[in-house]
Amino acid sequence: MFPEYDVIVVGAGHAGCEAASAAATMGSSTLLITMNMQTIAQMSCNPAMGGVAKGQIVREIDALGGHSGIISDKTMIQFRMLNRSKGPAMWSPRCQSDRMLFAQEWRDTLESIPNLDIWQDMATGVLVEDKRVIGVKTSMGVEIKGKAVVLTNGTFLNGKIHIGEKTFGGGRTGEKAAYGITEQLIELGFESGRMKTGTPPRVDGRSLDWNEMEEQKGDENPEKFSYTDTPRLTKQRSCYVTYTNEQVHQTLRKGFDRSPMFSGRIKGLGPRYCPSVEDKINRFADKDRHQIFVEPEGWNTVEMYINGFSTSLPEDIQYEALRLIPGFKNAKMFRPGYAIEYDFFPPTQLKLTLETHLIENLFFAGQINGTTGYEEAACQGLVAGINAHNKVKEKEAFILKRNEAYIGVLIDDLVNKGTEEPYRMFTSRAEFRTLLRQDNADIRLTQKGYDLGLASQGRLDRMIQKREESEKLVKALKEMKISPDQANGFLESIESAGLREKSSYYSILKRPEIELGDIKNLSDEIKTYMDSYDEEVLEQAVIHVKYESYIEKELLMAEKMAKLENLNIVSTIDYDKLTSISIEARQKLKKMKPQTLGQASRISGVSPADISVLMVHLGR
Amino acid sequence: MFPEYDVIVVGAGHAGCEAASAAATMGSSTLLITMNMQTIAQMSCNPAMGGVAKGQIVREIDALGGHSGIISDKTMIQFRMLNRSKGPAMWSPRCQSDRMLFAQEWRDTLESIPNLDIWQDMATGVLVEDKRVIGVKTSMGVEIKGKAVVLTNGTFLNGKIHIGEKTFGGGRTGEKAAYGITEQLIELGFESGRMKTGTPPRVDGRSLDWNEMEEQKGDENPEKFSYTDTPRLTKQRSCYVTYTNEQVHQTLRKGFDRSPMFSGRIKGLGPRYCPSVEDKINRFADKDRHQIFVEPEGWNTVEMYINGFSTSLPEDIQYEALRLIPGFKNAKMFRPGYAIEYDFFPPTQLKLTLETHLIENLFFAGQINGTTGYEEAACQGLVAGINAHNKVKEKEAFILKRNEAYIGVLIDDLVNKGTEEPYRMFTSRAEFRTLLRQDNADIRLTQKGYDLGLASQGRLDRMIQKREESEKLVKALKEMKISPDQANGFLESIESAGLREKSSYYSILKRPEIELGDIKNLSDEIKTYMDSYDEEVLEQAVIHVKYESYIEKELLMAEKMAKLENLNIVSTIDYDKLTSISIEARQKLKKMKPQTLGQASRISGVSPADISVLMVHLGR
Repeated sequence: MFPEYDVIVVGAGHAGCEAASAAATMGSSTLLITMNMQTIAQMSCNPAMGGVAKGQIVREIDALGGHSGIISDKTMIQFRMLNRSKGPAMWSPRCQSDRMLFAQEWRDTLESIPNLDIWQDMATGVLVEDKRVIGVKTSMGVEIKGKAVVLTNGTFLNGKIHIGEKTFGGGRTGEKAAYGITEQLIELGFESGRMKTGTPPRVDGRSLDWNEMEEQKGDENPEKFSYTDTPRLTKQRSCYVTYTNEQVHQTLRKGFDRSPMFSGRIKGLGPRYCPSVEDKINRFADKDRHQIFVEPEGWNTVEMYINGFSTSLPEDIQYEALRLIPGFKNAKMFRPGYAIEYDFFPPTQLKLTLETHLIENLFFAGQINGTTGYEEAACQGLVAGINAHNKVKEKEAFILKRNEAYIGVLIDDLVNKGTEEPYRMFTSRAEFRTLLRQDNADIRLTQKGYDLGLASQGRLDRMIQKREESEKLVKALKEMKISPDQANGFLESIESAGLREKSSYYSILKRPEIELGDIKNLSDEIKTYMDSYDEEVLEQAVIHVKYESYIEKELLMAEKMAKLENLNIVSTIDYDKLTSISIEARQKLKKMKPQTLGQASRISGVSPADISVLMVHLGR
Repeated sequence: MFPEYDVIVVGAGHAGCEAASAAATMGSSTLLITMNMQTIAQMSCNPAMGGVAKGQIVREIDALGGHSGIISDKTMIQFRMLNRSKGPAMWSPRCQSDRMLFAQEWRDTLESIPNLDIWQDMATGVLVEDKRVIGVKTSMGVEIKGKAVVLTNGTFLNGKIHIGEKTFGGGRTGEKAAYGITEQLIELGFESGRMKTGTPPRVDGRSLDWNEMEEQKGDENPEKFSYTDTPRLTKQRSCYVTYTNEQVHQTLRKGFDRSPMFSGRIKGLGPRYCPSVEDKINRFADKDRHQIFVEPEGWNTVEMYINGFSTSLPEDIQYEALRLIPGFKNAKMFRPGYAIEYDFFPPTQLKLTLETHLIENLFFAGQINGTTGYEEAACQGLVAGINAHNKVKEKEAFILKRNEAYIGVLIDDLVNKGTEEPYRMFTSRAEFRTLLRQDNADIRLTQKGYDLGLASQGRLDRMIQKREESEKLVKALKEMKISPDQANGFLESIESAGLREKSSYYSILKRPEIELGDIKNLSDEIKTYMDSYDEEVLEQAVIHVKYESYIEKELLMAEKMAKLENLNIVSTIDYDKLTSISIEARQKLKKMKPQTLGQASRISGVSPADISVLMVHLGR
């Protein structure tokens, strides 16, 4: 009935969509299995893409040739560059999305990809032969052959929804959970765990009083995610900011005895940095208010997402507390918040390609690996899809290094450190974050995407032009000089020290108090010259000039690390014989099977001394 | 937590959406409960509205002020007026719809209606006090008070999906079934039954060979459903026609031993006039082919609906048979067809308002009443919503007569005759079908919609103008005369008999061989005069002139029937004492509790003789 596919992807959320489109675009005959074709690429939680560190990931996905950036651009209703006042490593693009359009755009995209078939059904297990996956079986009783399988089951595996004292099976509210896969994987030898996440109530915007909240508009000059020529927003919808208060907290506390979190009914750990409101008032009892963002769900809908008010307290408590928030006096809920528990598989069971150690050609991506967040899921899907294709076509593994991309950091962290609670990306997780900026994801990754067959020639040309022009501009800024006579009038007017001799524009731009616009005020010559460049190129050059020393320091460190990274650990190594290594390190190394010395160095419990021993051993 | 609502509507399909919007628009505080806000107004089966008799219903809904017509107009991708070559009673508007847009447009519409709240949850039962409904309870454990409740559960009540030998619980593929309500209603004394329906596979249009099929374009001058100024289509998508063949049939037969229909696993009766393909080849074994319509699911999607190939045979058989159809050699399925069994409640348990006899203020609408079809569901929803509002606000019941609307025929049939199999509307069910045309639904019903507070003043003005102008035109055609000299040249040229004396244009137009365009050819005077009228007015006038005798005959018959209809049967009547009535009739009358003599006369088993006895008895 079905052909044998190269790659079968189970699940059509952010991870599954990127995985399937990547494998198919690279040339694998690909099947995407979804429980419901009407709910492809549903945003289960907040209607937004990007944010701190996450926005960088979206740009990286885009640079590699994935779709999340383009689809976000086409369906956004508001854009903001977060942390603009901080250093460029912190700049993070974020958008509000139209939930319905986002899903529709993904579906249109998937339908436009040759080699990509879709089958509506529920995968209930994988077909395995000699420790190698050969397909999937479904609830319809069909067996579909596939050379590689990518599982992206999200929160659906034995999903259990909690609201107060009530519990239902479900993968998302109103949707069925998926059963069978966990049990089979455990039988195959996998370890599994339980995590939880939550979502806030949705509210009828017509019942809110906007005058009692602060309006939060989008950026005046909205940027976007994709390096392609997706259009910028010309109109935007505002979000609104309000706050909880002591009354709200007291009301919420009334429900604590019925809370599935506090009663111990929920076993799984939740995302530490996206806590429920009851968690917040419990953990930070001294804080008398918490911020609430009221986010529209789309261009036309009155549905509002109450960001910051994630909760699984009983719905009557949710309602009562909600109505005590300024602006919410007459609030009408469309549905309450809830918590969901689901199965995940500790990601230490994976290779850096996201293939499992236990079963060849079986890949995991997204929440099944213990992560949280759309962006984290999408980039894993992309990497798993690429590697599933490469494995099947006997090509090289695709692994991003920690100094190349947040995606590299994410997967390296997961595989080497594992995670006990839903893993979310932060800039602080990246030791080379000045290198991994949102503005240069194209320069870092487009060539790789192109080599993989994902990023188009047009993308590559565009990136090369941007890179060359910014290098040319930096060079020119070093060569072009200005005399004290010309410069000092302006410099003094902005309280910057005057020049004592002819100096390069480059040296002036390096001063912390000097902005791009200031340089242009120094002379007509430099203004005319700089205006001949694109904004993107100017930004790139300015960052290079101003943050040169940081960038160079990180590059040096990265080089040092790369040496360790390039020292491969032979797979036949017998750690038990390396008695000069600590017992804990031996155990961890045996379990994690690091592929390089660098990887080994990042395993918790493996000390620099252990690494030295290993290095000597490998040196032989 | 919730206010007490005037009207609570359970379910957001065609019936629920019309019910909720009607009640809210009329001024009832209304709550719509849906299991999933992302799947409001899903078209579960074919992406189309209207068709024979069904298109008339959509226009009736529109004339009354419902939304199905407007939403169909806004989301259609193709329009055809079926049966244009037959008499105007048979003309039936039909469109292909964009499935996603249709749902989105309904959701936007619902969100724009004041007084209408939405709550995402599953209703698990009704709250009843003293044989009167006072609200609903939900799976979240919430009790919501409501003065009236409209149940529109569709195929979700204990829904069970069959594909070959596999069976799953589900309300639609990929969606949960609803449990609890049936059991409670049975406890309350209701009778319930089981029905089944089915849907065909969905196919990837990219895998089909269009050259092997006939293209079926939309009408050259597409019309529309709504009498408001919704725009007409300027571009359309084509459908394609192909046929099954002996090979296809033989392949399907291979699966008969695994068919849930033939093995007796499915207990419920299916829709006779929308049979599965296995039913067709079984019942019409002599037919060597059946027609298949390949219908696009939207403007952009490659998903195709295979109309005419509804089936619950095993999916491997579906695939194999499908690929033997011309154009389907390489067909890829997105999902197989399936059958679904669900609970319904024999509609003889209802009043003509769709309120149940047993529980006051509890209304049923849609498939729960044993009907099939979006249009049948939508119009019941509209009537139930109107009557729920009217009941709560102590206003008069809203009942459409059989000579006023197909909606009247439908409800009268359901309530008085009941149904053993899914009830679908046909023109043949309407004894006054020359009165109940698609072109005059506005003239028949807009005043009623306006009086209810549903149809706007603008609609009413528009209808009155159309009616007055067409009456004026008919009058003018009677008064304006033409001489034989002027007319005979043209008349003879089209082989119509010449005039012998000065005659009215009216008398010429009455000739069967004369069309509207011909009249204009008779003289410049009449051409100029007629061109001053709108197309709609011209059409209305022409139909009146040409079908006058039929219309008058039906009007007379309707008047006769109306007399019976106006004879109310007192609710205290004791049928047991009417010994001169047949025993069967006494039993049926006791059970059905007809409100008028006309209603009594349509109950099967009640003879004209019984009616005479009743009439005499009531005359006292």
